[in-house]
Amino acid sequence: MRRITSRILQLFSGNKQLLLQLEHLLGFRPLHIGFYQLALMHRSKLDETEKNNERLEFLGDAILGAVIAEFLFKKYPYQDEGYLTELRSKIVRRETLNNVALRMGLNKLVQYNQNDKGLSRSHIFGNALEALIGAVYLDQGFPKTRQFILSQMLKPYVDLDTLESTDTNYKNRLLSWGQRNAKTISFDTLDETNENTRKIFTVGILVDGEMVASGTAYNKKEAGQVAAQKAIAQLQIP
Amino acid sequence: MRRITSRILQLFSGNKQLLLQLEHLLGFRPLHIGFYQLALMHRSKLDETEKNNERLEFLGDAILGAVIAEFLFKKYPYQDEGYLTELRSKIVRRETLNNVALRMGLNKLVQYNQNDKGLSRSHIFGNALEALIGAVYLDQGFPKTRQFILSQMLKPYVDLDTLESTDTNYKNRLLSWGQRNAKTISFDTLDETNENTRKIFTVGILVDGEMVASGTAYNKKEAGQVAAQKAIAQLQIP
Repeated sequence: MRRITSRILQLFSGNKQLLLQLEHLLGFRPLHIGFYQLALMHRSKLDETEKNNERLEFLGDAILGAVIAEFLFKKYPYQDEGYLTELRSKIVRRETLNNVALRMGLNKLVQYNQNDKGLSRSHIFGNALEALIGAVYLDQGFPKTRQFILSQMLKPYVDLDTLESTDTNYKNRLLSWGQRNAKTISFDTLDETNENTRKIFTVGILVDGEMVASGTAYNKKEAGQVAAQKAIAQLQIP
Repeated sequence: MRRITSRILQLFSGNKQLLLQLEHLLGFRPLHIGFYQLALMHRSKLDETEKNNERLEFLGDAILGAVIAEFLFKKYPYQDEGYLTELRSKIVRRETLNNVALRMGLNKLVQYNQNDKGLSRSHIFGNALEALIGAVYLDQGFPKTRQFILSQMLKPYVDLDTLESTDTNYKNRLLSWGQRNAKTISFDTLDETNENTRKIFTVGILVDGEMVASGTAYNKKEAGQVAAQKAIAQLQIP
């Protein structure tokens, strides 16, 4: 009964359109519209002294990190923490989130100074999406926020397979360049040392027997990737 | 009834002592002891192929970050996200967590290779504490984990006032060195530029009118701290 009353009040308080848009975006009815209004408020629209969405972005970023960590922990029971950390960073990085925010249509809701053309390059929609997560958390608590992230963001808009395979691209790109240009590409483990209890590997890349780049990481696969990335830059492979 | 039965089974399965120690440490009775045994298992005690606590550390680190973010967000309603981010990083950094873990007595529970003397310097207890948070989350869910972090870790073992004032130490140390040595120390704002919509400040430090260091940050206070830290290194102030 209390919920219905507050719902009616909201609908008649001039926020009717925003509320409907949010309900569509979130998959549930917001209870406290104020959190969401703040989440959609970019600093460029305000005076220095007014509240913007950056504190909510701080909160939402942390909640998102936790939800994605748990999701990956359970989805990949046989992958080590290095793999999980890397995959999570690909999901929560600014480019990915900004893309998700655009596909969710958040650019139509965020309040910002549209005359500032530099803003469109600065991931303000991805940041607002994090702020929105913060708002959902304050409004609805952890389980509902978790559900929102997984069902409204991750499932429809994040292609895990593509993100997972991104790290093999440097190596593949280098190898396919070698095939096209009749060059022999080989990977050579140059060094294995110990840092405390962890091994560190250095992998070198030879093109027709000549060393062009090397990379260092905690495992051979990753070291090979780092080296391949450098080789691609070094050889100016497009 | 089911809980009591599983409790009795646990007590008779050879884990009685660990269960009692955990109950004391956690403030509640663990349901699934396996999560906790894994959380306390350092890689140095195992073969490469056996499971260690590093995946749980990944999970616990993320849950801890979210809980601390919410705690600070609510405790400091008038501080901006830069302040909250900095204070959180002081709480969750490896030195702080390792110290908390030692004070909680986690070093008596963690299984590690005690012959490897380098390990004591590598924050394995702080890392195990993060893994323990991951275990609590899997065993008990978010609200209980939140309660554990706030009441069993943060409140008794983290001195927020000290952590908060840490950032002023460089400036204070430099100023008191000036007083002791009759040097005039002054801070000078050298530059204010814009990066997208954010201002960036560069602050220089003059000792008896001569520039010794400068620092850059998103606000003047922080830029002054960065500069003071560099000046302390530059002047070899103990």
